[in-house]
Amino acid sequence: MKDNQKKIIFLIQCEDRKGILSATSTWFFQRSYNIVHCQQHTDNIEGRYFMRIELDMLDLKTTRKELEEDFGLFAKEYNLTWECHYSDYNARVAIMVSKTSHCLYDLIARKNEGDLKCDISLIISNHPDLEIIANQFRIPFYYLPVTAETKAEQEAKVMTLLRRFDIDLVVLARYMQILSSDFTSQWHGKIINIHHGFLPAFQGANPYRQAYERGVKMIGATAHYASEELDQGPIIDQDVVRVNHELSPNGLRDVGKDVERRVLAKAVQAHLESRIIMYKNRTIVFDVER
Amino acid sequence: MKDNQKKIIFLIQCEDRKGILSATSTWFFQRSYNIVHCQQHTDNIEGRYFMRIELDMLDLKTTRKELEEDFGLFAKEYNLTWECHYSDYNARVAIMVSKTSHCLYDLIARKNEGDLKCDISLIISNHPDLEIIANQFRIPFYYLPVTAETKAEQEAKVMTLLRRFDIDLVVLARYMQILSSDFTSQWHGKIINIHHGFLPAFQGANPYRQAYERGVKMIGATAHYASEELDQGPIIDQDVVRVNHELSPNGLRDVGKDVERRVLAKAVQAHLESRIIMYKNRTIVFDVER
Amino acid sequence: MKDNQKKIIFLIQCEDRKGILSATSTWFFQRSYNIVHCQQHTDNIEGRYFMRIELDMLDLKTTRKELEEDFGLFAKEYNLTWECHYSDYNARVAIMVSKTSHCLYDLIARKNEGDLKCDISLIISNHPDLEIIANQFRIPFYYLPVTAETKAEQEAKVMTLLRRFDIDLVVLARYMQILSSDFTSQWHGKIINIHHGFLPAFQGANPYRQAYERGVKMIGATAHYASEELDQGPIIDQDVVRVNHELSPNGLRDVGKDVERRVLAKAVQAHLESRIIMYKNRTIVFDVER
Amino acid sequence: MKDNQKKIIFLIQCEDRKGILSATSTWFFQRSYNIVHCQQHTDNIEGRYFMRIELDMLDLKTTRKELEEDFGLFAKEYNLTWECHYSDYNARVAIMVSKTSHCLYDLIARKNEGDLKCDISLIISNHPDLEIIANQFRIPFYYLPVTAETKAEQEAKVMTLLRRFDIDLVVLARYMQILSSDFTSQWHGKIINIHHGFLPAFQGANPYRQAYERGVKMIGATAHYASEELDQGPIIDQDVVRVNHELSPNGLRDVGKDVERRVLAKAVQAHLESRIIMYKNRTIVFDVER
Repeated sequence: MKDNQKKIIFLIQCEDRKGILSATSTWFFQRSYNIVHCQQHTDNIEGRYFMRIELDMLDLKTTRKELEEDFGLFAKEYNLTWECHYSDYNARVAIMVSKTSHCLYDLIARKNEGDLKCDISLIISNHPDLEIIANQFRIPFYYLPVTAETKAEQEAKVMTLLRRFDIDLVVLARYMQILSSDFTSQWHGKIINIHHGFLPAFQGANPYRQAYERGVKMIGATAHYASEELDQGPIIDQDVVRVNHELSPNGLRDVGKDVERRVLAKAVQAHLESRIIMYKNRTIVFDVER
Repeated sequence: MKDNQKKIIFLIQCEDRKGILSATSTWFFQRSYNIVHCQQHTDNIEGRYFMRIELDMLDLKTTRKELEEDFGLFAKEYNLTWECHYSDYNARVAIMVSKTSHCLYDLIARKNEGDLKCDISLIISNHPDLEIIANQFRIPFYYLPVTAETKAEQEAKVMTLLRRFDIDLVVLARYMQILSSDFTSQWHGKIINIHHGFLPAFQGANPYRQAYERGVKMIGATAHYASEELDQGPIIDQDVVRVNHELSPNGLRDVGKDVERRVLAKAVQAHLESRIIMYKNRTIVFDVER
Repeated sequence: MKDNQKKIIFLIQCEDRKGILSATSTWFFQRSYNIVHCQQHTDNIEGRYFMRIELDMLDLKTTRKELEEDFGLFAKEYNLTWECHYSDYNARVAIMVSKTSHCLYDLIARKNEGDLKCDISLIISNHPDLEIIANQFRIPFYYLPVTAETKAEQEAKVMTLLRRFDIDLVVLARYMQILSSDFTSQWHGKIINIHHGFLPAFQGANPYRQAYERGVKMIGATAHYASEELDQGPIIDQDVVRVNHELSPNGLRDVGKDVERRVLAKAVQAHLESRIIMYKNRTIVFDVER
Repeated sequence: MKDNQKKIIFLIQCEDRKGILSATSTWFFQRSYNIVHCQQHTDNIEGRYFMRIELDMLDLKTTRKELEEDFGLFAKEYNLTWECHYSDYNARVAIMVSKTSHCLYDLIARKNEGDLKCDISLIISNHPDLEIIANQFRIPFYYLPVTAETKAEQEAKVMTLLRRFDIDLVVLARYMQILSSDFTSQWHGKIINIHHGFLPAFQGANPYRQAYERGVKMIGATAHYASEELDQGPIIDQDVVRVNHELSPNGLRDVGKDVERRVLAKAVQAHLESRIIMYKNRTIVFDVER
């Protein structure tokens, strides 16, 4: 029942200038590609142009390598920064967790239902608690405890695993450790974190306690790419839920779990569907036709 | 971390009249009960009064039976309709499904995370597809196929199972069969169904197709108690999500799954927490302090 | 502080086929137009392609008439259905009301604050009640009462006024009369109505009473183009608000006013900003960069 | 059509202890009052009990003064902090503005439609721009410019006006000046401010610019009681709206106006309907049956 049309997706950005759309669409048209969907954004403050193009993969008459080399020449001429993705490729995802299971369950369930097109290749945790879920779904689980002293060593092990499993995307599904800036910069744009607060409010620890004490009337969650500064990376998605005086910090936390799940899943889906372009500390997240 | 205070919950309704609150609260006070939480609603159109009272179970100095008999006398005097629940009792839940797994996964995950206080005692389906999920979580699974000819017979088998497993609540988690009015009346107020549309719009089959054709800008889901008339039972919860022209009927269906999950889980939780009073075709759903 | 860049906006639709985007963007590029923003939608079910193009008006080196004639030739070749709008033109709007003022106030306030770029040229009502508001804002007010017998005659007077005032758009801001199909077909795509219910639920009269009786947990409002069949025209926008058992039909009505205001204003704004394309009974509503 | 039943409303808070509900409801019952609505909240962290009671004013058989004196004795015995309000009293409201009109228009319109039960007795501004609106609605307007040097003097004039007009509530409807702590402490719990950001994110100036730079995906507004610390007072209501990369800071500001209007109006309405109890830096906001 899913839309089975396979697609080639180009994500493009460049300085804004006249004629980019005409040149690009004509480039594809001349090679007999049908542009299934084309979305653009111009950031007038930054003078920057962003484009996402979906092609029908049936129109691909060359190898993927040839297409990319060919487009590379065009991109050079117009000074485009670009990526090319293929919808028939299943990204390999590693999920990092601590003790809380709600986001992990949700991501696995969505993957199994076909809503997240990826392989969940491994689960890494600094606690052993969630191994039982990994086993249930027969996903490799690595327990790598961490202390202040062993942090560098543990991260090295994590990165070795990520390479060994050929991971494309790391999802921090309530992993309650701060990654070193060395880690985040090596995996720039490839780590999605869920923060259980409405950033930039309530950064850091215990956001639900902070929210209770401030007496807020809504709580939220924020999915963002991890960056060197904690909770400062480019935001992908946010959502909130209305709360009232009846909720204690624990009550807020329970109610917040639903928002965390939803926001993280939406962000991971957008990444897997090649719908996000990052520029400086902001994201352009394109919707898609379904 | 969960609030461990055990509670006794009274759900009360009666004709509206002066002094009910005073009489009831005094009744409990005289027996040294601390009223932890008390909520009321007066329906001025129906002239009907509704009350939910939470007591601290530590104040219970008699047997549960004695409490109920004692309150029964008071209730008779004031002509109250009432139920009494105990928060340390885990309701026994049967989930009925067809082929779609998203609500089933979600209910199991929430139960495992402690958000739904119940036992999921069995899963019944008219298709064999989801047995694998039941096995994963070691929940008994019964495959009871149904045709127009075998409907009565199949329902008899279902009801036998519900009795054998001592079921308190049946959740139709996208069970794509219409239950007979015989079934729904025997289980009145004990079957929660998720309808994948914003009732009363789009009743019946293929609501997402209907929504597409009408060109709506939001789609929704409705959790309600099953009643004799299809999609007409008392609504417990509803929610919607914004959609646009980019979504085909299949796209609407994919987007709608999230709302269905959320709405069904919220309705089941409200039922399990003894927060719902039904009157005619409407529900009073009380919030709780957490 | 408002973005002062003047724009030319093309709304285009045609049968879907390869190369439309390339041909169109190249047509404008060859005439030295900067495409400020370009949005597309392909309805794969209908096989139909929709496009909205924003040009910088500073690039206009011909008269508007010449541009349109020139583009008309191109459109003919590609069999495009199209409209051309200029952002420096203030549409002339007539508002029709009965006795309820909340939408009227809201539209006038938004116009005065610069959020609705239009002239509110006249107000027509079948009741005299709101003349005071018209006077306050010095807007011509016409009181045209209507009965079953005088309906045709009254509508003729209304249409005469619309012509005399050179009206581009009629907004039914809680005008509690059903327009004849003669009227709606003459003004096809130029009448926006606010329905105080979440269509297609609760069509017809007294939707808040209907909502109360059905015991819904959300109420909504729907803005749509008026069509020959009551409440069946293409939907432009919808929104909802959560309600509970505490609201009587009057309470629902009071709470609903806010949604009505918001939805109607959003729909009128989308129309005035030339962001809506109608096809059959559906609308494509494009967002804009601001 | 409005519910015409006049009501007496008690707002009560005290240390939490057994029997308060029984004692209070019995006190009113013994004096033949019908408790139309009774809401409670126990803050278990603070050990504090809050109650809102609605009585039918037809049951008032004494003077208001006698009722209050009588209840005062009871309150003393139980150590209650309390207020008593009468729904037939129209609070006298002063609105303070600067140059932006959207909240002002909205409050006036809602008052005229009967949704805000109050008199808008005067408008005070540090700029002359909005006098025209005041004139339109025949509301006294005072232009009191302010500079760093004249701040104390200007505030003294403002407070003189508030006293002269016998003001009960001051609404800062985008008044872009910071009130001195002397002012806010004299008017503690009687000044409602709308902050154009989702507190505690984006405190201080230019929240929409801050939101743009942080790349948030939702923006919000917060209505709160003014306190000595800027943007730190007890929050009454908050709401958000989804935004995306297409919005510049100005675009965010335009979109945000709608949220500001809505949130401010809801907060003012809750205050006017005596539904808010303040405790430390938090508010309990009770819903009401309508």
